[in-house]
Amino acid sequence: MTSSPASLPDLPSLRQYVRTVPDFPSPGVGFRDITPLLQDARAFRALCDHYIDRYRDAGIELVAGIDARGFILGAVLAHALGAGFVPVRKAGKLPFESIGESYALEYGTSAIEMHTDAVRPGEKVLLVDDLIATGGTMLAAARLLQRLGADVVEAAAIIDLPGLGGSDKLRAAGFPVHAPLAY
Amino acid sequence: MTSSPASLPDLPSLRQYVRTVPDFPSPGVGFRDITPLLQDARAFRALCDHYIDRYRDAGIELVAGIDARGFILGAVLAHALGAGFVPVRKAGKLPFESIGESYALEYGTSAIEMHTDAVRPGEKVLLVDDLIATGGTMLAAARLLQRLGADVVEAAAIIDLPGLGGSDKLRAAGFPVHAPLAY
Repeated sequence: MTSSPASLPDLPSLRQYVRTVPDFPSPGVGFRDITPLLQDARAFRALCDHYIDRYRDAGIELVAGIDARGFILGAVLAHALGAGFVPVRKAGKLPFESIGESYALEYGTSAIEMHTDAVRPGEKVLLVDDLIATGGTMLAAARLLQRLGADVVEAAAIIDLPGLGGSDKLRAAGFPVHAPLAY
Repeated sequence: MTSSPASLPDLPSLRQYVRTVPDFPSPGVGFRDITPLLQDARAFRALCDHYIDRYRDAGIELVAGIDARGFILGAVLAHALGAGFVPVRKAGKLPFESIGESYALEYGTSAIEMHTDAVRPGEKVLLVDDLIATGGTMLAAARLLQRLGADVVEAAAIIDLPGLGGSDKLRAAGFPVHAPLAY
């Protein structure tokens, strides 16, 4: 199944594998669906290898993936970079002593949590999710990592929706962002 | 961060990285917490490499990971084996046309879903989750894959709780099982 690197799609062409599903999760919203990108072996390989190349010499010790789609790219990067993997989970999912950070949604708030022993002070952590929209989840995760003493090297995602301001908000808060497919 | 293979912990010693948390998610239940195993770079590498070695020549074309912890090992295997990755999700999470399969919980039922275009007929699929207990989720996922035309090569997990009967139930239904850390 393994393709030679030369035959893999380049990064811009990966946009063709992202499907826009109208009216999900609510009327008027166009959902950027990455499942066709993940399930095509060559596209998935090309996607992962882009980030592996980017972070190969960055000294990443731990990759934090955000529940649930952030686990996919995050776990691949942890393994490929020789780092550990830590899940940032929705509230109530983690069994051990945890700390949480809440963030605003369109209506109401939500919260994410991490185990208190998930990070060693000073550890170089790459934060990963699939998509940055308003940036609320990613910013809450970055702050949670900082509270645990992490050195957050970058917030990485597959897709950025810059019109919603999330990636700018993350940068303004001091977190470098890399999300190469912008819509 | 990359360790030489010779220095990695062997499979039986990975048990030391699984933490038992009492009374989670409910009183009297001892939860097998794999987060210490994931976050230790050498242990995580050794864990993943065990499965990569097992499936390297199995012709796996697609890895199906179960929401959410099954995404972690599943995505690593998809990338390492040169396969695609497909998420098996809890009900209501997938944006495109989906089919579902429900399964019994201790009280009531739950359901998982897959996109109808997630598998090509005859595709060789490896099914991955973190833990097999009563086997309800894994069996529902295996049946869903079969309904989509997949050839389910094996159901792989990290931890098996054989006393709860799930792995036997999967085997009785015709699905080979590999879950090397038994408790």
